Formats: sequence, C-alpha cells, structure tokens
Amino acid sequence: MIDRLITKIEKMSNPTVAGLDPAYEMIPDKIKNEMLEIHGKTPKAVAEMFIAFNKALIDSLCDIVPAVKPQIAMYEKYGLEGLRAYMETIDYAKGKGLMVIGDVKRGDISSTAEAYAAHIGGVAIEGEYFDLWREDAVTVSPYLGFDGIEPFIKPCNEFDKGIFVLVKTSNPSSAELQDLAASGAPVYERVAMLVAEWGKLAPGGLGYSRIGAVVGATHKEQGEKLRLMMPHTFFLVPGYGAQGAKGADIRGFFDRFGSGCIVNSSRGIIAAYKGDPRYGDGNFAEAAREAAIRMREDIRGRADGA
Amino acid sequence: MIDRLITKIEKMSNPTVAGLDPAYEMIPDKIKNEMLEIHGKTPKAVAEMFIAFNKALIDSLCDIVPAVKPQIAMYEKYGLEGLRAYMETIDYAKGKGLMVIGDVKRGDISSTAEAYAAHIGGVAIEGEYFDLWREDAVTVSPYLGFDGIEPFIKPCNEFDKGIFVLVKTSNPSSAELQDLAASGAPVYERVAMLVAEWGKLAPGGLGYSRIGAVVGATHKEQGEKLRLMMPHTFFLVPGYGAQGAKGADIRGFFDRFGSGCIVNSSRGIIAAYKGDPRYGDGNFAEAAREAAIRMREDIRGRADGA
Repeated sequence: MIDRLITKIEKMSNPTVAGLDPAYEMIPDKIKNEMLEIHGKTPKAVAEMFIAFNKALIDSLCDIVPAVKPQIAMYEKYGLEGLRAYMETIDYAKGKGLMVIGDVKRGDISSTAEAYAAHIGGVAIEGEYFDLWREDAVTVSPYLGFDGIEPFIKPCNEFDKGIFVLVKTSNPSSAELQDLAASGAPVYERVAMLVAEWGKLAPGGLGYSRIGAVVGATHKEQGEKLRLMMPHTFFLVPGYGAQGAKGADIRGFFDRFGSGCIVNSSRGIIAAYKGDPRYGDGNFAEAAREAAIRMREDIRGRADGA
Repeated sequence: MIDRLITKIEKMSNPTVAGLDPAYEMIPDKIKNEMLEIHGKTPKAVAEMFIAFNKALIDSLCDIVPAVKPQIAMYEKYGLEGLRAYMETIDYAKGKGLMVIGDVKRGDISSTAEAYAAHIGGVAIEGEYFDLWREDAVTVSPYLGFDGIEPFIKPCNEFDKGIFVLVKTSNPSSAELQDLAASGAPVYERVAMLVAEWGKLAPGGLGYSRIGAVVGATHKEQGEKLRLMMPHTFFLVPGYGAQGAKGADIRGFFDRFGSGCIVNSSRGIIAAYKGDPRYGDGNFAEAAREAAIRMREDIRGRADGA
C-alpha cells in the first residue's frame, strides 16, 4: 500500500489526500432537497445525500489527488445507513483509481484489535473470504500499546495494506496527554519511537513502512523533529487549511526528496464552495477541484524546496 | 445514567456487566448450522448467529446482571450486517431492562467527536430526532485530550447518558504508553486527574459523575490508588476472569460502601460452556447464567469486605 501510495503521489506530483468528511450543513441545497423529497427526513436521505455529494467530489478530484480519506464518524453518526454511505464512497473512490485511507482511529486490546483489523484484512466465513470495508489503510490509536497494533501487521503484509498510528494530532488539546513530559521527552515522541520500531515489522520497498504515523500540520517544529526521528515512517498530516496550517508550515515534514508525507484537507476542499462568492451550490465540485489544485501548488512548491 | 446504573447494581446486589463480545468460534453448533443453512456462508448468517446467541444469553442473564457491554469491534468485523446485529442486541437488551454500555473506544478531534457523540446523543434531521445507536454509555479514548471528550458532555447531561474514558486498560502492553513516567506520575494517573476534572461537568446525583473511567482489573495496586485519586469517578473494570483477575484483586477498586465499580467479564460468561464438561452446546445460556452467579458471589463477597 505504502509503495503504491508513494508511486501515485509522485506520478500526480501531489502529496494531498482529500478528506471526505461530509456534514449535513455542507450538502448543497439541490442534493439535499432532492433526497429529502424521495426519502423523507430520514437517515437514508442523509446517506443518499452523502453518496451523491461524495461521488461528484470524487469525479472532480480523481485526476488531481491520489487518495481520499473518509472520516467514518461522519457516517457512523447516521447509523447503518450512514455506514452504507461510507462503504459506497470507498467502492466508488476505488473504482476511480483513488487510494482510500479510512479515518477510523480504532484501538483496543489484542482479540478486539484483531476484529477491527478486518477493516484492512477482510473476514473469512467457513472458507469464504469477504472484504467488507475495503480501505487501503486505516488510522489506529496507540493508547493500548502494541497489543492494539499487532493484529494489523499481518494484513498489512499479507494484503499490502497500511495503518497510520496517532502520534501527534492536530487539535489544540492534543497537548494535554501527548505533550506530557515522559522521562525527558514528550509522550508523543515516545509513541513515535514505538511506531518506528513497530514499523520494522511491515517494511515497504521504497524506504517507508506500511505502519505510518499521524502528525498534525499545526505542530511545525514537532513535525520537523519527528521526521528526523522516524526516517522510515510515512506521515499522514491532518490540520492543513481549515485548521490553520499552510504549505510553509509542513515543509520540514517531508524528506529531502520531497516524499514521506501525505497532507489532508477536508472542509478546505469539500466545502470550498461555501462562503466563496465565486461559487454557488451548483458548482461545489468545481470549487473543490480548484481548492485541491491551489493546495497542491501551495504544498508542492514547499515540498520541492522551491 | 450513572444514578440508574448505581441503583440497579444495588437492587440486584451485583456490580457485574456481561460483555457481549461474540466470536464465530463461540457460537454453538446448533445455531451456527441453522444460520449457515438459511443464509449460506455470508456475513448475514454470522449476524443472525450473533443475534440468536445474544438473545438467549440476555434472556438467561437479565435477572442476574444489571448491564451488558457489547464490544462493537466483534460486530464491525462483519460489516453492515454485523453492526445490525450490534444494534438489535442493544434493542433486545434494553427491552429486557438491561443497561447497555457500548464498548466503542471512539476518540477524535472536536467536530469528529461530535459526530461520534451520536452514539449517546442521537441525531436530528430537519427537526426529526433519531436515536440510532441507543447505548446508555460508551467508552472513549483520551489520546486527543478534552477536544475528544467535550462533545459527549452535553448528551450525557441532556439525555442522562454516560461515558467511560480509558485510563488504565487491562492488557499487558498497556504499560508501553500508559505507564510512561510523566513528571513523576505515570501517564495514566495524569489522565485520571483529567478525567476527574472533566467529571465535574457532568455530575450525577449519587456522588458519581456521568464521566467514568476504564480501569483494568489486572492492575490491583494501580486501581486502588486510582480509587483514592478519583472519588467521584465510577469505574468500568475489564479484565476479570478470562484475562486473569479475581474478586480479591479488585476489592480496593470499590468505595467504602461497596459501590463505585462495575466489573466486566466477556468470555468468562458468554463462552462458559466451552471446555466445561458439565455443559454442552445445548445449555450455553445456562452455563453463562451460572458463571455470572459465581462471578457475582466472588465479587460481592469481596466488595462487601466479607
């Protein structure tokens, strides 16, 4: 997965992943009204809104970005119908050649983590194999230690999938736990060292492991230090755009070849039409495409050291 | 929720929650074969197995234990069909008067955590309200700090629901991150102090907050210290039984009135019929009931100081 991702990023000259995190208030009126009319004020209507919204976004983005990152919470909010929309989004994105990082942030003890690993490993029922979730990679929480990571390693290697372990998240209160000083180093650095170690169990062929790290774009110095500490760990970088970070902030998150990172923007891309007088409801997908191109240029310039 | 839980525990003289964490290999042959015959080797068959298994367990346990704790991972493994079984299990348990703690261990940044909070807060669509998940409480990860907790507080207070934040988990590798020394105290104690603080935002009426903590039964001394550090924080205690802990180990997790805890056993109850020559496939529910009674006596004796 990590080799495919690196190759695809290079081919498209774009280390960007579009976060498909739809919220009800983002849905253009035309789609919203159509689905409410057909399905009533129901979770099914919202699921159909998300599917229609995402499909148009995917069509508009699939030759610009190498990957999408649906945030499962936005779908799970609407129960089974919402999760069906999550799965249909993944199917559609993969059909368009996009790689899919499922932002699920699961984490539990070993036997339970093994069940969650079905996200990337599928499930066998009396010899029949089902790949129900179909993500290429998922995000995972480190709070339970290696017990919660180990079950993902086998599917990473067996099916060429990946995980990104939370190291330093982009949100303001990430400091409360992650920045605690633990024997001279902040907790997130201790986690980084664990992730780098774990990464040796699932190496890719291009210098990076199938076990990556989530490092928020909002923490410039920390990200730069983590890049040096974890030379074989690919970063999934949230926090660009709506959360405040710009291309210049993440220059040092890349390696000297301009690789090693994929940067996420969600609202900044998919809700770009909102509040921008150049766009209206009807051209939300075009707005997303143009936002993704602006983001690519912003990041690419920096990543190349230009 | 926390007051209802405390009252129910007291009324039944039993601080036990049965973990409804079905695995394929736990399903008695009769149920397994029946569902395979009807539905084939499909996720739907497994979902129907889990529902049949859980319903029989719930019928057999509902006058012995005050609550059940389905582990969502075991269901999520089987995709949408599995999650349907999770929801039907919750509905059935609530219909039988049981309280339901959803072991979901979700945790994310604020806007995303808000979406996950639908587990306990439901969702409104154009003024129509849907309670799709229906858990009375859910487990939550602290790795992202207060941002990931805050969105749950409103539904806790508004709908009288609860959360249990991971503090010290029961698994062996929990030490890797949770036991790191952070300014003289292990990380999990620092998290405990945060959880105690957060708890003030959602107080119950019987001395305990709607924001509880997960504290593994496998850590005797740590649990005893946490009880003193967090006098108003109710503990959800995993790790009893199959993971090794006994009633004596968790004596000090309770307060001086024998309250303050609910102890989980999953495999030790629901798979009690396995490997015990007194039981066979046909009486798995009876085996679970008898295991739950033995557990109640083991814990109750200790909790009462007997």
